[in-house]
Amino acid sequence: MGEESYARVKLSVISYDQVNFQEKEINKVEEVSSFRNKPSVTWLNIDGVHQIEILEQIGKHFGLHPLVLEDIASTGQRPKMEDFDDYIFVILRMLRFDDKENETKTEQISLLLEPDFVISFQEKEGDVFDSIRERIRNNKGRIRKMGADYLAYALIDAVVDNYFMILEKLGETIEEIEEKLVTNPTSETLHTLHDLKREMVFLRKSVWPLREVINRLERSESPLINKSTYIYLRDVYDHTIQVIDAVETFRDMLSGMLDIYLSSVSNRMNEVMKVLTIIATIFIPLTFIAGIYGMNFRYMPELEQAWSYPTILILMLIMAIVMLIYFRRKKWM
Amino acid sequence: MGEESYARVKLSVISYDQVNFQEKEINKVEEVSSFRNKPSVTWLNIDGVHQIEILEQIGKHFGLHPLVLEDIASTGQRPKMEDFDDYIFVILRMLRFDDKENETKTEQISLLLEPDFVISFQEKEGDVFDSIRERIRNNKGRIRKMGADYLAYALIDAVVDNYFMILEKLGETIEEIEEKLVTNPTSETLHTLHDLKREMVFLRKSVWPLREVINRLERSESPLINKSTYIYLRDVYDHTIQVIDAVETFRDMLSGMLDIYLSSVSNRMNEVMKVLTIIATIFIPLTFIAGIYGMNFRYMPELEQAWSYPTILILMLIMAIVMLIYFRRKKWM
Amino acid sequence: MGEESYARVKLSVISYDQVNFQEKEINKVEEVSSFRNKPSVTWLNIDGVHQIEILEQIGKHFGLHPLVLEDIASTGQRPKMEDFDDYIFVILRMLRFDDKENETKTEQISLLLEPDFVISFQEKEGDVFDSIRERIRNNKGRIRKMGADYLAYALIDAVVDNYFMILEKLGETIEEIEEKLVTNPTSETLHTLHDLKREMVFLRKSVWPLREVINRLERSESPLINKSTYIYLRDVYDHTIQVIDAVETFRDMLSGMLDIYLSSVSNRMNEVMKVLTIIATIFIPLTFIAGIYGMNFRYMPELEQAWSYPTILILMLIMAIVMLIYFRRKKWM
Amino acid sequence: MGEESYARVKLSVISYDQVNFQEKEINKVEEVSSFRNKPSVTWLNIDGVHQIEILEQIGKHFGLHPLVLEDIASTGQRPKMEDFDDYIFVILRMLRFDDKENETKTEQISLLLEPDFVISFQEKEGDVFDSIRERIRNNKGRIRKMGADYLAYALIDAVVDNYFMILEKLGETIEEIEEKLVTNPTSETLHTLHDLKREMVFLRKSVWPLREVINRLERSESPLINKSTYIYLRDVYDHTIQVIDAVETFRDMLSGMLDIYLSSVSNRMNEVMKVLTIIATIFIPLTFIAGIYGMNFRYMPELEQAWSYPTILILMLIMAIVMLIYFRRKKWM
Amino acid sequence: MGEESYARVKLSVISYDQVNFQEKEINKVEEVSSFRNKPSVTWLNIDGVHQIEILEQIGKHFGLHPLVLEDIASTGQRPKMEDFDDYIFVILRMLRFDDKENETKTEQISLLLEPDFVISFQEKEGDVFDSIRERIRNNKGRIRKMGADYLAYALIDAVVDNYFMILEKLGETIEEIEEKLVTNPTSETLHTLHDLKREMVFLRKSVWPLREVINRLERSESPLINKSTYIYLRDVYDHTIQVIDAVETFRDMLSGMLDIYLSSVSNRMNEVMKVLTIIATIFIPLTFIAGIYGMNFRYMPELEQAWSYPTILILMLIMAIVMLIYFRRKKWM
Repeated sequence: MGEESYARVKLSVISYDQVNFQEKEINKVEEVSSFRNKPSVTWLNIDGVHQIEILEQIGKHFGLHPLVLEDIASTGQRPKMEDFDDYIFVILRMLRFDDKENETKTEQISLLLEPDFVISFQEKEGDVFDSIRERIRNNKGRIRKMGADYLAYALIDAVVDNYFMILEKLGETIEEIEEKLVTNPTSETLHTLHDLKREMVFLRKSVWPLREVINRLERSESPLINKSTYIYLRDVYDHTIQVIDAVETFRDMLSGMLDIYLSSVSNRMNEVMKVLTIIATIFIPLTFIAGIYGMNFRYMPELEQAWSYPTILILMLIMAIVMLIYFRRKKWM
Repeated sequence: MGEESYARVKLSVISYDQVNFQEKEINKVEEVSSFRNKPSVTWLNIDGVHQIEILEQIGKHFGLHPLVLEDIASTGQRPKMEDFDDYIFVILRMLRFDDKENETKTEQISLLLEPDFVISFQEKEGDVFDSIRERIRNNKGRIRKMGADYLAYALIDAVVDNYFMILEKLGETIEEIEEKLVTNPTSETLHTLHDLKREMVFLRKSVWPLREVINRLERSESPLINKSTYIYLRDVYDHTIQVIDAVETFRDMLSGMLDIYLSSVSNRMNEVMKVLTIIATIFIPLTFIAGIYGMNFRYMPELEQAWSYPTILILMLIMAIVMLIYFRRKKWM
Repeated sequence: MGEESYARVKLSVISYDQVNFQEKEINKVEEVSSFRNKPSVTWLNIDGVHQIEILEQIGKHFGLHPLVLEDIASTGQRPKMEDFDDYIFVILRMLRFDDKENETKTEQISLLLEPDFVISFQEKEGDVFDSIRERIRNNKGRIRKMGADYLAYALIDAVVDNYFMILEKLGETIEEIEEKLVTNPTSETLHTLHDLKREMVFLRKSVWPLREVINRLERSESPLINKSTYIYLRDVYDHTIQVIDAVETFRDMLSGMLDIYLSSVSNRMNEVMKVLTIIATIFIPLTFIAGIYGMNFRYMPELEQAWSYPTILILMLIMAIVMLIYFRRKKWM
Repeated sequence: MGEESYARVKLSVISYDQVNFQEKEINKVEEVSSFRNKPSVTWLNIDGVHQIEILEQIGKHFGLHPLVLEDIASTGQRPKMEDFDDYIFVILRMLRFDDKENETKTEQISLLLEPDFVISFQEKEGDVFDSIRERIRNNKGRIRKMGADYLAYALIDAVVDNYFMILEKLGETIEEIEEKLVTNPTSETLHTLHDLKREMVFLRKSVWPLREVINRLERSESPLINKSTYIYLRDVYDHTIQVIDAVETFRDMLSGMLDIYLSSVSNRMNEVMKVLTIIATIFIPLTFIAGIYGMNFRYMPELEQAWSYPTILILMLIMAIVMLIYFRRKKWM
Repeated sequence: MGEESYARVKLSVISYDQVNFQEKEINKVEEVSSFRNKPSVTWLNIDGVHQIEILEQIGKHFGLHPLVLEDIASTGQRPKMEDFDDYIFVILRMLRFDDKENETKTEQISLLLEPDFVISFQEKEGDVFDSIRERIRNNKGRIRKMGADYLAYALIDAVVDNYFMILEKLGETIEEIEEKLVTNPTSETLHTLHDLKREMVFLRKSVWPLREVINRLERSESPLINKSTYIYLRDVYDHTIQVIDAVETFRDMLSGMLDIYLSSVSNRMNEVMKVLTIIATIFIPLTFIAGIYGMNFRYMPELEQAWSYPTILILMLIMAIVMLIYFRRKKWM
């Protein structure tokens, strides 16, 4: 884990107010202290949580509870929000579709909201916050006019917006499968259906607690969050509800598709059975008749007549036709 | 999107009190200001939300929050209600049955209730509010005697009433399918069943949050809503509950019909199997007997007797009859 | 709808206290005013709600809200209770088993509780309230000693008691079906099961909101309801819970019966398959052997021996016996 | 019902405090009045509720509400608890396994808790309260040191303890069935599974409201219940939760067993199908070949060669072996 | 149970503060009294609850309620927490994977939190608390700096951490089964699936009440628990939620796997049916034709021609090829 992985932990600071803007990468946590007494909003983003020393320095510097550091470091946490009066601690799960493995991956994002200060932790360097950096740099939208709580909102919003992209991907896959179901269902289709179902379970597990997190933020009445920010939180809350709605709809669709798959399989079985029955039902009796006149009894008077053979053939033909009519009536053909 | 789609956004104003009534189309949002200081109720209806400039002008004119404008413009919102003290913002989903595509379509309706002022936004020009316009023009019912809150109620009520028409359409389709299920179930019937099920999911998703919206309006205690209007809100609330009830009943019926479909499919399979079994069970043993006497052993004394052939035929007949009796007992025939 | 259906709306008044009792039919709503100032309890029963004029006269006379009249007139309402301070408005659904159509029918009963006054609306003349009339006429039980709220309770109780009769009917049908399931399940049995399931859905939809209605009456703290009446309301509440319990139990039973039906169908299929397999498995190999010795090769030495034929017959018999033992071991027979 | 059933209603009184103890049977309700003014705890147990006169005398004597007497007399009540300030009224359902009919039976137990007085009603003489009588007689445990509320608790506890015995019985039956499922599942097993499922529904219906009853007793804050008794009520509450837990677990187990049953049935079907397919697939082609050489064409050169017959036999053998290898590969054998 | 099992109950005391540490085994409960007046934290651990005398001595010594002792002794309790003001009583269930029987076993852990005193009861000697003993001995972490409430938390945390190990075990088994499902599903796989499902039910039953226990501890506001400990309780609460999440996910996965199993079984059935149908459908008609020319009619002119035999053989070949093409089109091959 030595030097190399140490190097990979990247600490970048953005500090801004309505007029000023500063952005730099720092090497040591202590450097951040110069930003602490300023009235401007400071955002410290940390890519990589595997360096315990850095986390501990941050913890010491900002007076964080040891359990907060543990939660940041152990990256399998459920989304949650905790209000420590001095600061608010939020854990989110970011989803990312891995094109190579054709699978949704998850990453833990931890946020700390202090007065005029936001610290964000990502497991790896990623691009999900790039649009926010752009907006700050170029003074686009209202972000430069608002406080640290709005920045925290913007980060959460960026994570939730990412879910919609995942949903779109899954929606496309579902549509593809749906077409295959009608044209050519195979047992592979079934496995894809089950994989999608599992993805939904996965998504649900990430989104449901997220909703609760945002709800609690909204109702926290913490002095760290301005009243004017609540409406933005409600907006991102509405987005999580939309994600949940979409997930539930997809689940319903997948169940319906599973039912269609199973009944199309059983329809095919039916069809196979019908062909077997038609063939067997027509030819078994005819073969029996042929068997009768294949017997070697000495005294079988029919065998001696010239008209016997054509008569029997015609009889057989009539039997087959009667059978076919019967099957057509029964709608087996 | 230029000039053409600009032209399509239609702003129409209706202003009324118990004695006066005025109706006109306006071209610029500023024209509405002449109505703002009057004591009469004014209703501004906007058909088309794709013109951001118009929305922004309205936002500026009425002091709306930017997020409200965003919600109005992005038309995939869930029904919701937000109380901004100065105004109440409501999003509804209107359903419309598209006869051409044989599918239920959804449209977002946004309402803003201000003191003596209601603004409604539709995605396209529609006829759902025509009856309300008629009632205002002709001073029918109590609408001209009541305030802006009653107008808002009337608009919501018109949207909810529309749901009943959709339900009727779906109810008819369900009845048709039900008849087909008994007379001639095909795999197409199954697909229609699943389409209906999906429509129900769709309907549910629109109605459930609507119920919550109306409930919150009822409990809002906003000064914008008169006490006397609460009972009307409760009435429309009861209607949403009826819609939900109907949707749930349809869902139950569809599940039951799916079960009947599946068991009728398996019944047919059973029938096919029985025919196969009856034919095979009767003729396979008889064919075996015929096979015995078709063997070419030199010393088969039965073959030489004159009575052998008729005896064997009679024996075969008896076997077949015994089998048939057995099948009749087993209720396979 | 003219004169004839007008004639059918029947208004009957019963007025009583502990000592006095008066009963008459009235033709005009105004006649009821003579009863209004009396201290005795007055019950106005109206059979038929299709005459809007009469409803409007009652509405004017008793100062009812227009929406109340609408709810009374449109008879597809859900059970509900509304407290208008001056009066309490209750909608119930009465169930009736229609022997002719072999189906449960529903009728809306609306109740208005005013001080010393109860108004009840039925869709048609019925006999559900006859026992209460009898109790009042003959001064049986406590009804004559109690106020209008007790009368309202008694009417609700009569409606709920009716549910038990429906449940008994359904219970009997379920028992019949259960016997048929064991002795001779047909696809008709399945349809009856689904009809019963639908009846349950129907019943549930009527009873669940009723429970809420009574619960709200109990908790209303309206001055119109005496404290001593609460215990009676709690009693009728317990009855609705019992009805709900019974409905849920029936639902569980029906699900279980459906499972038994399906598995008995699949058992029969199994049985059919076994018979087919036994017959085919025994005779197909034997027929093959017979086929061998039916071949016309010139050099088949076995054919020339005298002992060949009986040997082959014995061999075939042994094969058949071995097969039968195998099937018996596998428990197919 | 006359004299005989009158004789069967048994009224027995036990009166005790820490030092004194008295037990006797009484014939008339009035005799109980001598116990009412004493400071000791008195327990009146009544076996049989079919004698309305006795209930009415008790009602008059203890000032009970008429509805309480109705509830005691009509023995199909749901467990419930009602606090009448002067007394607390509790209905429980006792379960009893009837070995003869191999079925769980239920009996209604009604309890009345008055100051220093407990009245219990059983439908028939039973032995469920015998252990409590023993404890009072022999001054075992704390019962003689506690008040009437503790006695009421002890009676409830005895009823709940009885549930565990029922659960044990059912648990044993479930284990037996489970073994049969693995060794030899028959359609009778299925019926037993469904009977057990129904028993669970039955049990659930008795226990769930019981839990609520005890919960309400615990939270009643009635002066009739000492604070020190609350912890005992909480204990019996925990027991009802354990019963509910066990019932739910059994339900889950039964569902799992049903699934196993169904899939074992379908496995057997599979096995049957495989045997049929193997036999048919091997012998039908062979029989065809034999049929070829059974044809009577005059010019079939093969028939004349001496080596033809053995060659054909060997060819057939090879075909059968190839088939068997194929089936073994497919894991059908 | 005599001397032997008496000997097995082991009482060990650990007493510590920030500077001092003492650990010893005691033989009599009275020995513990020397620790009671000290300001240091004392932890009394008791392995074995089958010795009623020891429990009674502890009960007398610490003034415990008799029901608490009963709950400790009867080891089938549900997790629960009770606040007796003077002390807090907690029951937990510890899970242990028994490698020999390949089954999860459960053990009851009872905790008593008194001022500066924690008593823990285990059913058998175990190693789950060893890490805590180590931390106390070696003064690792914050445990020596905190009070008795933190010790109680640490014990609960150790129990909950154990669940994760069980989950890992089950997760591995699930993965193994999943692979088998794809490669070679047998009916044994099904049984393993059902066993796993049952384990999940088992786990759920242990974890759900545990969550409630910790929640109640968190909200108890008991003076026995310091404010600074609440955050640790919230942490262990989060862990139980994670366990519950994992259990639910496993349940979903198992359901999905069951579906895959069932549909793979029905796929195999389909395959078997197809083979049967292909063979039968090809050879039954051919056998019939062979049967025709095996008949012994005297006048069958085809039989006399030299070209008849090869013609018929070619005809048969063509028929078989046509059939095969048909099957390939139907995707049966």
